[in-house]
Amino acid sequence: MVTILKLGGSVITEKERPETLDGPSLDRAADAITGTGRDLVVVHGGGSFGHHHAERHGVSTDAGTTDAGSAAEIHGAMTTLNRFVLERLQDRGIPALPVHPLSLAHRDGRGSLTLPAGGVETMLGEGFVPVLHGDVIPHEGEGVTVLSGDEIVADLAGTLDADRIGLCSAVPGVLDSGGEVIDRIEEYDAVADALGGGEATDVTGGMAGKVRTLLDLDTPAWVFDLDCLAAFLGGGSPGTRIG
Amino acid sequence: MVTILKLGGSVITEKERPETLDGPSLDRAADAITGTGRDLVVVHGGGSFGHHHAERHGVSTDAGTTDAGSAAEIHGAMTTLNRFVLERLQDRGIPALPVHPLSLAHRDGRGSLTLPAGGVETMLGEGFVPVLHGDVIPHEGEGVTVLSGDEIVADLAGTLDADRIGLCSAVPGVLDSGGEVIDRIEEYDAVADALGGGEATDVTGGMAGKVRTLLDLDTPAWVFDLDCLAAFLGGGSPGTRIG
Repeated sequence: MVTILKLGGSVITEKERPETLDGPSLDRAADAITGTGRDLVVVHGGGSFGHHHAERHGVSTDAGTTDAGSAAEIHGAMTTLNRFVLERLQDRGIPALPVHPLSLAHRDGRGSLTLPAGGVETMLGEGFVPVLHGDVIPHEGEGVTVLSGDEIVADLAGTLDADRIGLCSAVPGVLDSGGEVIDRIEEYDAVADALGGGEATDVTGGMAGKVRTLLDLDTPAWVFDLDCLAAFLGGGSPGTRIG
Repeated sequence: MVTILKLGGSVITEKERPETLDGPSLDRAADAITGTGRDLVVVHGGGSFGHHHAERHGVSTDAGTTDAGSAAEIHGAMTTLNRFVLERLQDRGIPALPVHPLSLAHRDGRGSLTLPAGGVETMLGEGFVPVLHGDVIPHEGEGVTVLSGDEIVADLAGTLDADRIGLCSAVPGVLDSGGEVIDRIEEYDAVADALGGGEATDVTGGMAGKVRTLLDLDTPAWVFDLDCLAAFLGGGSPGTRIG
């Protein structure tokens, strides 16, 4: 019963101010995770840590850099945020261990991602909580490019044969054009108009892209906000169910 | 033409004093590496950073811990040392990037190591210098156990089809019973007596174990000290050639 939980960068950081943690929100997330038991993988986004540096160096998921200094700067900002997340979890007795995608994953010349999950599976089997994050990764012909937290979630869901995906975001669910939370999305066409109207601004893909990707997975996903994290981890169905 | 260079923990740290860098020696190593070109993988040992914590928590290559705090402490000490190494290399314009084995490798229930090298290969192809290190890694049935720098070197030599291995150590080569550097070792039996007399003290295996492991590889290896690092990287054959 593997659960993958994505903590959105906009939830745990102050997205408008470079490298600024939203400490109270991270504390609330860590409180909700405490005591939820085994078989949990946490993935967090970059928020104001990663995106700021990635934009400054012109690095995205398909445009890279071969400059090691730029790569190290983006990666360093993300590992700083990762250390904050790990500390808050470990402080509460959650056996969290870091997994840095720069060490693990890569893309080939066509941009296809390889993310070997054997180490993450072994950590889960031994009772640890692996904590991954958006990062830069080596990319054939591009130097390094961005790997988003959302891509990690989608990839791991398949390789780990996950049972549930939770996306803890800044909004209470996927919203229709009237601003109401959509209860469930089973096909994209049914919500395309609603989503097309509300462009999210995020270099690693807005809500429409997230919904499309999640619908392609075999694992059901829920989009909800921090108020509903405990309910999701308790087995509930808050926010919007996708798939 | 891939070269794997191991910087021994006893070279770049003061091994008797916990978490103490040997800064001048690390500077000399970084100077020697500067300008040696592409296709270099650096692996460094733990020295007084990793071994100190590993011993304190009773963690070795086959005895593990399921305590995330202990694992994080050993790993944290090793990543601190890794940051020192990366900084000294990057300061000299060497495009070094970190690769943390905790994120990458794991052992199964029989202790067999899996270390996927696709990311390291892609880094090399893009002109980066991957820098790995001794670490703890998830181990089925044991929690986490130690992965030594020497094991990383042996594993990568095969998967990267490396051309040369250099072990930069605290001694000028493999020494015979009279304390003289042995020029070349092609089979273990010829030097067994000499090596049996001089037990090295290192939780991750003494010189006899290193020689046995290196003889099993298809890649020739050289054991030398810091004085000879530039000569090795320049294509020379200093110290002891093994294989």
